[in-house]
Amino acid sequence: MKALTLVKIGGQVLDDMAAFSEFVSLFAQLPGEKLLVHGGGTSVSQMAVKMGIEPQLIDGRRVTDAASLKLATMVYAGYLNKNLVAGLQAHHCDALGLSGADANILQTQKRPTKPVDFGWVGDLTPNSVGINRLEQFLEMGLCPVISAITHNGQGQLLNTNADDIAAALAIALSQSYAVSLIYCLEKKGVLSDLNDEDSVIPAVYWAAKPQLLARGVLSKGMIPKLDSAWAASKQGVCSVNIKNSGDLLNPDSGTFIHYYS
Amino acid sequence: MKALTLVKIGGQVLDDMAAFSEFVSLFAQLPGEKLLVHGGGTSVSQMAVKMGIEPQLIDGRRVTDAASLKLATMVYAGYLNKNLVAGLQAHHCDALGLSGADANILQTQKRPTKPVDFGWVGDLTPNSVGINRLEQFLEMGLCPVISAITHNGQGQLLNTNADDIAAALAIALSQSYAVSLIYCLEKKGVLSDLNDEDSVIPAVYWAAKPQLLARGVLSKGMIPKLDSAWAASKQGVCSVNIKNSGDLLNPDSGTFIHYYS
Repeated sequence: MKALTLVKIGGQVLDDMAAFSEFVSLFAQLPGEKLLVHGGGTSVSQMAVKMGIEPQLIDGRRVTDAASLKLATMVYAGYLNKNLVAGLQAHHCDALGLSGADANILQTQKRPTKPVDFGWVGDLTPNSVGINRLEQFLEMGLCPVISAITHNGQGQLLNTNADDIAAALAIALSQSYAVSLIYCLEKKGVLSDLNDEDSVIPAVYWAAKPQLLARGVLSKGMIPKLDSAWAASKQGVCSVNIKNSGDLLNPDSGTFIHYYS
Repeated sequence: MKALTLVKIGGQVLDDMAAFSEFVSLFAQLPGEKLLVHGGGTSVSQMAVKMGIEPQLIDGRRVTDAASLKLATMVYAGYLNKNLVAGLQAHHCDALGLSGADANILQTQKRPTKPVDFGWVGDLTPNSVGINRLEQFLEMGLCPVISAITHNGQGQLLNTNADDIAAALAIALSQSYAVSLIYCLEKKGVLSDLNDEDSVIPAVYWAAKPQLLARGVLSKGMIPKLDSAWAASKQGVCSVNIKNSGDLLNPDSGTFIHYYS
């Protein structure tokens, strides 16, 4: 099987010009076939303030009203996606920016409004990924760069969690590729002490989840990320790694996530 | 030669929900291979006001400063492009949204800053169009939907005139396709009396340009549009038509533009 590296990038790396440039340069150097999934960073929140849109959160999760969806579409699928693509092209990586609507690569279902109405949010289903189109693009030598905006097939765009998209794509592509999934973030990996950047846990097994939760060592954002990472490991993704974006080319860095021990 | 229809859409159609939906439905019904190029409508100006960006114009042409380029990238390549693509997907048209950076389909040169500095504007060159990639996408059964954001190949996005992009693409694709180029607008075509919507001139020849200018029947926006249309007609595009977007499926409507009489 051919190897494929699937990188998810998000958070502050996308907001900081120097970190952004460094990441683009490192990603372009990754050998072989590859694919990039990106979230939105904090730029959406900053811009929402400028445009007088009040960010709404329920249990720490963003509620996507119509104004927020419009802004997310502009920032994720427009500003960030096209700057990533232009940056990669400058490094001779033939990038192709995609939202889920493009070539129908990610069709989702609007989340039910009960018990909580999260607004224009799309949830992935087992049939969400347009795998044939993605494989065609990869075979053409293109590097898909995918923003976390999907569609419902009826003309409605939807906001979707970028970690979940990365896992779903990695799982779907594992039918044809030996996939390495890498979640890049500011931290060096999963930390055993949130105040100590160097306390990276080298490997995290699904069986250890209750202990990790009990010890309270996981940040709030890390729990759903680990859940998507374990799901990927369980469903055929060869390697799942959470690491600092600056360590992208260092294959032994960060935390490796395993479903099976 | 296979036929290909290349439609350029812009202006108020993109701002008005009902007109937008009607256009998407009509475009999806166009038979055969097709491609859509879109500008930004007036939504960028509205949003610029919201975000406190002062629109700058020199001789009626927009100056693209850094804030305006960011906004144009968000609105053209993000909001409008992805809503067009999602709308077309709902009509079973397998659309693929692209900026010029994506798969390197439109590489431009930043306009010289003398005599007038128009800012982050990219001008087309004879080698701008990534024709091989576009043909691959068309052969895959995809319908490219192209926003008027290009790149310089060195990581810089640039704002480019959408009429000029439509003409350049039509000319490049004429090597392999019998191309019909259609500019859609609010008006029914080129009018002999700007106050009479029904005074459509059925055909406009390049040789008649001095007369048209002398009679003062051309609106300010129409002159560069006609120049790009004549350039397309001169360089092998089979048919060039300027018409109302609601008449898209009526092959005899509007004004036909001919370079040779």
